[in-house]
Parts: sequence; C-alpha cells; structure tokens
Amino acid sequence: MRYFAAMKEVQYAYEQLYDFTVAVFSRMGCPETHAHTAAQVLLSADLRGIDSHGIARLSGYVRLWEAGRVNPQPHIDVVHETPSTAVIDGDAGLGLVVAPAAMRIAMEKARQVGTGWVSVSNSNHFGIAGYHAMLALEEDMIGIAMTNASALVAPTFSIERMLGTNPIAVAIPAGSQPPFVADMATTTAANGKLELLQRKSEDAPYGWVQDKEGNASVNAHELKQGGSLLPLGSDRDHGSHKGYALGSIVDIFSAVLSGASYGPWAPPFPAYVPISENMPGKGLGHFFGAMRIDAFRTAETFKKHMDQWIGRFREATPAHAGQKVLIPGDPERETEAIRKVEGVPVAASVKEELHALARKLSLTAHLFSL
Amino acid sequence: MRYFAAMKEVQYAYEQLYDFTVAVFSRMGCPETHAHTAAQVLLSADLRGIDSHGIARLSGYVRLWEAGRVNPQPHIDVVHETPSTAVIDGDAGLGLVVAPAAMRIAMEKARQVGTGWVSVSNSNHFGIAGYHAMLALEEDMIGIAMTNASALVAPTFSIERMLGTNPIAVAIPAGSQPPFVADMATTTAANGKLELLQRKSEDAPYGWVQDKEGNASVNAHELKQGGSLLPLGSDRDHGSHKGYALGSIVDIFSAVLSGASYGPWAPPFPAYVPISENMPGKGLGHFFGAMRIDAFRTAETFKKHMDQWIGRFREATPAHAGQKVLIPGDPERETEAIRKVEGVPVAASVKEELHALARKLSLTAHLFSL
Repeated sequence: MRYFAAMKEVQYAYEQLYDFTVAVFSRMGCPETHAHTAAQVLLSADLRGIDSHGIARLSGYVRLWEAGRVNPQPHIDVVHETPSTAVIDGDAGLGLVVAPAAMRIAMEKARQVGTGWVSVSNSNHFGIAGYHAMLALEEDMIGIAMTNASALVAPTFSIERMLGTNPIAVAIPAGSQPPFVADMATTTAANGKLELLQRKSEDAPYGWVQDKEGNASVNAHELKQGGSLLPLGSDRDHGSHKGYALGSIVDIFSAVLSGASYGPWAPPFPAYVPISENMPGKGLGHFFGAMRIDAFRTAETFKKHMDQWIGRFREATPAHAGQKVLIPGDPERETEAIRKVEGVPVAASVKEELHALARKLSLTAHLFSL
Repeated sequence: MRYFAAMKEVQYAYEQLYDFTVAVFSRMGCPETHAHTAAQVLLSADLRGIDSHGIARLSGYVRLWEAGRVNPQPHIDVVHETPSTAVIDGDAGLGLVVAPAAMRIAMEKARQVGTGWVSVSNSNHFGIAGYHAMLALEEDMIGIAMTNASALVAPTFSIERMLGTNPIAVAIPAGSQPPFVADMATTTAANGKLELLQRKSEDAPYGWVQDKEGNASVNAHELKQGGSLLPLGSDRDHGSHKGYALGSIVDIFSAVLSGASYGPWAPPFPAYVPISENMPGKGLGHFFGAMRIDAFRTAETFKKHMDQWIGRFREATPAHAGQKVLIPGDPERETEAIRKVEGVPVAASVKEELHALARKLSLTAHLFSL
C-alpha cells in the first residue's frame, strides 16, 4: 500500500473488478465457468498485493486473444500419465484456467498414491503461482506451483536474456497459525517491482538489473534499453549462480518435461512481440505438485509441529527496533484482509486501460461502475 | 584448486584417502558395506571440489560417534509409506549411509508409480546433497536431495540463528551433454567458503555474514563472535526473504514432515556443542525425490531437448571477454576429472587431524601412506 501513496490511483470494490473481469473473459468466448475461474485467479493477485499480475494485465490477455494466441475454449487433455504423474496439453488456453485444472489433477493423484506431479505444455501466463499452490491447502496437502515465462533474465556471466522470472510457490498447511505460503520470482526482484519504480521515476537498488553490456545499473527502465534482470543473488560473489540454477530448474520442470517452449524460446506475454521461429515446444509450461501430509505423518501431528515452527520463528530476536521476523505469506495475507474491506487500489493508467477495454468490447454498462 | 594455491597442502591419491576412510568407519563398528558407502559419499565431496564436506569432516564424524550421537549399526526403518512416499527413521545412523538408502527407496517408488518422495528423521550430516540426487541419473530419473543442518543462518530482519545452510540439490539427465547438477546452500555463501577465507586471513564480501547486532560485516570469523550467515539474497532489498523461504522449505520438508528436529533445534555437527533440551523431534532430517523421466515423456525425447537446452545456454552471449555461461555441475565435474588423475589436495591442518585420528584409532599402518 505504501508504494502507492505517491501515485494517482482509484479504489474499487473487489466485486466491481470481478464482475468486469468475468464480463471480459466471457466476451472473449470463454465458457462461464472458465470466465469465473480466470477472474478469481487473476484478481487474487490484486487482493494479495501483487498488483503487477492482476487486473493490470487484463488488457494484455485480451491482446493475446486478439492475436490468436489464446484459445478461449480449450480442451485440456492428459497426454500421458502414471499413478503419480501427468502431462497436460493446455490447448493454448488461458493459463488462468489451465493451471487450476492441472493442479486439481495433481491433487487427485495425491489422493490416490500420496503425491501428484503435473507438467503442462501449451499454456499461457497463469497469474500468481501462489494461488495454485494454495489450492492444496484445502485438503491438508502441500502445494507446489511453478512456471516458465518470457525471457528477461541473464544467466551469471551473460548479457543475453535466457530465462523468465520463473517463480516458485510452496504452500504448507499449519494448525492454529496461518499457512506458510512462499511465492517468489527466482530473480533478485520481480519485474513488477521495477514497474512500480518506473511509475514513481525512482532508481532501483544496484543488483536488480544490468545494462546491455553487463554493467551494474540502477536504471529502472534498463529492460527497455536491452538490459536484463539478474537472478536471485545479483552477482557471482553473492550467489547469482544459485538464482540462475533455480530459474533453470523451473524452466526444465515446466517446459522440458512437458513439451513446452523453454529458455529464450518461451513465448512472450506482450502480444506485439513476435514469437520465435523454430520453437522447441508448444506455448508456456507449468509444473505442479501436491503432497498429502498424511502420506508422511498424521495431519494433526504435522500441523502441531508447524504451529511450533511458525511460533518459534515469529519470536526470533529482531535485528533492529521495530523489526520482526515474518513468515512467508504474512504480508500478502494482511494485504488481502485490508483490500477485501477497503477495496483494491488501481493505478490511474490501468483505469484508463480498463475503460478503453470496456469500450472496445462493448461492455459500456460497466463504465458506470468503473 | 586456485583457492588452495596460497595454502600449505598435501596431495593424496583418491585411493589412499578411500582406504583410510573405510578403515576409520570400520573401526567405528560400521558393517563393511556401510563403511564403503560412507567413504564413497564422504569423498565425493573432495573429488568434486567441495572440500569443506569431505575428508576434512572425518574427525568430526568420529567425535560424534565418541559422544554417542552416531549409531554405527543402524536399523534403517520405513515408519510409514504410501505408493509414492515413505518416512524413514535413520536410527541415529551416519547420514552418509542413511541418505543413499533413503534415496534408493525413493527410486524404487518412482519405478512403481512414476515418482518417489522420502522424508527422513533421526539422521546425521549426509555429506554433499549432490551425491544423493545424482544416484537417480543412473536410471533416467530426476533426483532431488535436501537436508536441514545446525542453525547458523538468521532469517531476514533477525540476528538469531534459526536455520542451517540447508542445501538443495537437483540432478537432471541429459543425452550427449553431461547432466545438469545444481547443488547449493540456500545461503549467499556456504560456511565452507568462509573457512577458506579464514585460512587465508582474508575478508568476505559484504552480504555473506552479519555481526551479532545485525550490522553488515566482512569478517570471515564473524560466526565465532555471535554473528550469523545470511540467506541467499543477503538483505531485504536483494531478496534475502527468498533465501530465508527456501531454507525454511528445506527445513520443513526434511524435518517437520519426517519427525526430525527443526529450525534452531537441529542438532549441531560439532560434538562439543550441547544438544538443545526439549527437542521437537529426532536427529537431523533429509528429504529425497526421484521422478522417472518416462513418467512424463520418453527419456529419449527429454534428453534430446535437454541437450538443446544445455547447448543453447552454453552459447549465451558472455558479459565480458573471457567469460562463458556455465551449466550447473560443470565446475564440480571438471574438478573431479582433474582430481581423479592428479589426486586430492588436503590442507596441512587436515593432514595433522588425519594423523591424530590414525594414532587414536590404532590405524598406524595408514600413517605410512598418509
């Protein structure tokens, strides 16, 4: 919330944004259930404070559909499976729809044999990874979600964009404590953080980006000038080879295992960016895992220990006055509680895009509420 | 190798170190097959250039045995299982023996149902994670290994040591290219890197450690003065909350899922450090995964694409003259090829420890070769 104080913005009730988003996906030709799922997944980003991945991207999805790169009525097929695994072809559907379907298959496998692992090809941007991982919490499972993405990140020692920000999410149930939910790009900073700085005309810290020649840079606009994002760790001395390895593992699990396009060939989200020729696979790839807690020990015992784990970490001695140790998922959950009541802040520029979208898709009834 | 140039050291043939290590574990009372397995796992670290985790730790294992904290003749039991999972009680055995046994169980489950996932309690330090993950490569599987460890790492915003360096290893087969093998501590730098700097009386880069008050520090001896290692990312601006989350996930998968001791309660490797009272579980914990490639697509197709992936990344434009993009596992494999021929360098101080060990355990016949 703090970041937005300096920027012009509008506050919407979640329901307003939800109704509009469902209307947009319906106008694209999505079946009603798909439109609702897609809206719920997309807007979970806005609720949880990851504003770069929510309603701000709605126009982008529409442009992908206009470019013929999103199939609004996909037949999501299981291409291959074993008792604990499946490979899914998303039929160029919205990742927002394909991903929860794939996660449900992983959970069904976990019900049967303890764990389920699903690699997905031929998909698109799936929103926030955390949403899909958290589906597992409903059934006392650990949920894992990852995806590859448009190449913006240079490996250690390189200036070439070879990997996406390739996030990993892991959701772990607890008892009286809220769940542990990590959801992180495998870069030092996600692209959305740069976009915030751009709107505020502020510099980035060193270590987030490099310029096109591989020099350290604080320019938040560096990606538009041929620069690249840096893997978690920023430089070799600070472990960037580990961030590069993590991003690579996400790419391989999501795309090489499934038959999607990987590395620099991953299809870009902006519809105006041409797709590479000679793609090695189909669309974007995702990877999902579900592990039933009671495939290891009783859920009751596990949750008791998770409560103790979380409680002990909350009590860890702070470094400085006013600081406290957070549990992964704390900031997003707090933001969600606030935004469900107070509404979702939307940047003025995004509001303009939504109005343009309403006019283009003849959804002008929504203009009154937006 | 470069790092050692400034230090006094001795070069041993691998076979010399191997025979001595087997003799030491046998003298501890390990059955012959266990002694051989433990020696092979331990020395794989020296071969691969991770000198902090190899022969340099042999005396430490002996001290744990003397303190009654290692059972040389463990009954490694499956406590609970489903078709794709198992929980193993290591019976306080050497992690060097318990870990490969658990990984073999994960692989057997993968043979049956596509993937296998094993969480282990009541174990000890297991050497390098990469060794165990790489076992899966023999059978065209992806291997995953992780472990918790003595608390040396402070979470973001804290000065208290709450987590170990908690490594993650992932080994992925390729075809004509060598396999992809990532093996990384979830800290900016592993403790072994600090030990090297200590021996050379050099400073660490900022971002590796903090002092006991949470201030940035370059002192390589900071851990002895109440300081702590920092999670991958180093500080909040550079993503340390992600390194903290990764280390936490390793801790939870390895210890909360299995019933081992977690977080600050993880038993320390140095035998002279007392174990916490009111431990929440038994011993150290590990977590292993094996995924059969052909549970997703044919191994042949997968390997063809891995070769393309690896080949493309090797060709990524370097940032500066003389640099090239490495594939995870490249440096360790190159070191192994050299050391198998030229021998393993051992620091003079470690040589003295090995001689003391030979005298203590009446293995003086080995003194001639060591």
